[in-house]
Amino acid sequence: MRATVLHAPGDVRVENIEDPRIIEPTDAIIRLTATCVCGSDLWPYRGVEAVDEPIPMGHEYVGVVEEVGGEVETVRPGRFVVGSFVASDGTCEICRSGYPSSCVHRVFMSQVGTQSERARIPWADGTLVATPGMPDPDLIPSLLAASDVLGTGWFGAVAAEAGPGRTVAVVGDGAVGLLAVLAAGRLGAERIIAMSRHRTRQELAVEFGATDVVTERGDEGVAKVKELTGGLGAHSVIEAVGTQEAMEQAVRSTRAGGHVGFVGVSHDVRLNGEELFFSQIHLHGGPAPVRRFLPELIDLIWRRRIDPGKVFDLELPLDQAADAYRAMDERRAVKALLRL
Amino acid sequence: MRATVLHAPGDVRVENIEDPRIIEPTDAIIRLTATCVCGSDLWPYRGVEAVDEPIPMGHEYVGVVEEVGGEVETVRPGRFVVGSFVASDGTCEICRSGYPSSCVHRVFMSQVGTQSERARIPWADGTLVATPGMPDPDLIPSLLAASDVLGTGWFGAVAAEAGPGRTVAVVGDGAVGLLAVLAAGRLGAERIIAMSRHRTRQELAVEFGATDVVTERGDEGVAKVKELTGGLGAHSVIEAVGTQEAMEQAVRSTRAGGHVGFVGVSHDVRLNGEELFFSQIHLHGGPAPVRRFLPELIDLIWRRRIDPGKVFDLELPLDQAADAYRAMDERRAVKALLRL
Repeated sequence: MRATVLHAPGDVRVENIEDPRIIEPTDAIIRLTATCVCGSDLWPYRGVEAVDEPIPMGHEYVGVVEEVGGEVETVRPGRFVVGSFVASDGTCEICRSGYPSSCVHRVFMSQVGTQSERARIPWADGTLVATPGMPDPDLIPSLLAASDVLGTGWFGAVAAEAGPGRTVAVVGDGAVGLLAVLAAGRLGAERIIAMSRHRTRQELAVEFGATDVVTERGDEGVAKVKELTGGLGAHSVIEAVGTQEAMEQAVRSTRAGGHVGFVGVSHDVRLNGEELFFSQIHLHGGPAPVRRFLPELIDLIWRRRIDPGKVFDLELPLDQAADAYRAMDERRAVKALLRL
Repeated sequence: MRATVLHAPGDVRVENIEDPRIIEPTDAIIRLTATCVCGSDLWPYRGVEAVDEPIPMGHEYVGVVEEVGGEVETVRPGRFVVGSFVASDGTCEICRSGYPSSCVHRVFMSQVGTQSERARIPWADGTLVATPGMPDPDLIPSLLAASDVLGTGWFGAVAAEAGPGRTVAVVGDGAVGLLAVLAAGRLGAERIIAMSRHRTRQELAVEFGATDVVTERGDEGVAKVKELTGGLGAHSVIEAVGTQEAMEQAVRSTRAGGHVGFVGVSHDVRLNGEELFFSQIHLHGGPAPVRRFLPELIDLIWRRRIDPGKVFDLELPLDQAADAYRAMDERRAVKALLRL
């Protein structure tokens, strides 16, 4: 089958690899309908994460089940499914407590690769959720978004305790940050401050429910959020970047007793313990437990209450994956969908 | 009046200083019944925090109101009061949200000094809570403990979400750690793991409700907590030290989705962002909002349901404050009460 493989920083190719097959009786094989490139795929693409050998890329996916192992009970061949970017058994104590992304048997789909024609999904029962039927084609981007970026933005908003009466600030205007804006709105936040200096991203943020846009960054961004919140800072801040600057901006933009939800994959971040102590914030984040939210997110998409697929501003056939990476790396695209 | 003043690391003296007087109409002057030495007083005593000029010491206190400013409404001269180690106005948005220790007008009582015969308490209405009457003498140590170490241990347990069905681990066997054990028990925790290698402290922890004692520290301590919790880690971990080792031990002892309450004043702590991200824990802490808990804690003490005063294992007259500091510095005493 055709699959996207990263050979070295900047060198991503679509090539023929062996078809996946059932290995464990809890596996499913899906034929992908669409996949996409994630901001976190850019870390190895840019060489920030080491690339020691050719690695299959991608961890977001929607598609049709082709085959299941002998122990799979909830998904059947022919069903359209959405799955989390982390496979989880769905039965361990950590899964049952709402944290499938930290399942004791978890498999990061980035280690499997999903920018390909087919993919093996471990722990199919605990990972995949079937849609009510075959989706209309225009729903595909939104369902695909639920696989990671929507689920991750949603978790950021939940971790930051966005809700009625609360002012929410979002650091980061990538797909996750924009969808955190959407999530905060759905969760009932009173005011949503999007931090962005890119006009098209600002516009999408406003379409998703942002009430204010702040273009300043770093200390100036913090000062602006404080100015908008009576000097106190936001109740809820979502960090959707993963850098030192973004984390500091998030912590410092939050009022005492407030909540930071951090969902940008941390890279070389060191948090000052004394600052955290005296900030008196709540901090929670990590790889989003997308599977927890999938039934609700699929329902909202199916009933056309949300349209997270709007974050895809570039669509290419799988074979042009290299162009998709380049466009995202150069920030010409927010997020690129790969058609199959 | 007589007051304790730190002149240089290790050089603490009780000397005559000017009596306090009402400065703001929201002030009260109290005559202290008892005060004490805190683990955090040892930071400047040991030279870990700089001592640039003679500083009045102490921030824990109980006593009788002598005089109040013109705007004080809830406490009257003659009443016995307990107050938080942070003075707070009680009316700002942060106070009302439950975080008086981050009040926009807060005054750390350590900047005022309470190891003295009298003390000026700013924001008397928002800071002090009167007891139902004059306490029996044997209740004084427990009421004094509520001023900081009990309230701080309690906040640690609340921040760590200790409660029914949960396993709680406590890192640190000082007065705050021991009282965090007591708090976790009162909050209904199912299992409480005290981490201590000192026999007398272990005994007090067990008396306060610890079900398990772990003597290992660092990575070995983490391994032991995991062994006791089916490999997952504790649901709730309270950090009551403030060092890099203790924070790492707390984070690593907590299961994914679990909660760390950190109440040890952070010194030179740097948290690894990537580790925090993948740990998927909740982190909350800081200077305890003791005032939030005082009415409940005073009630529990008054009805003799808890006996937090047991953490005081040394009692000396104020004039022997230097001996009290020495005993705590050398870990011969858990906590020293100073009589007046």
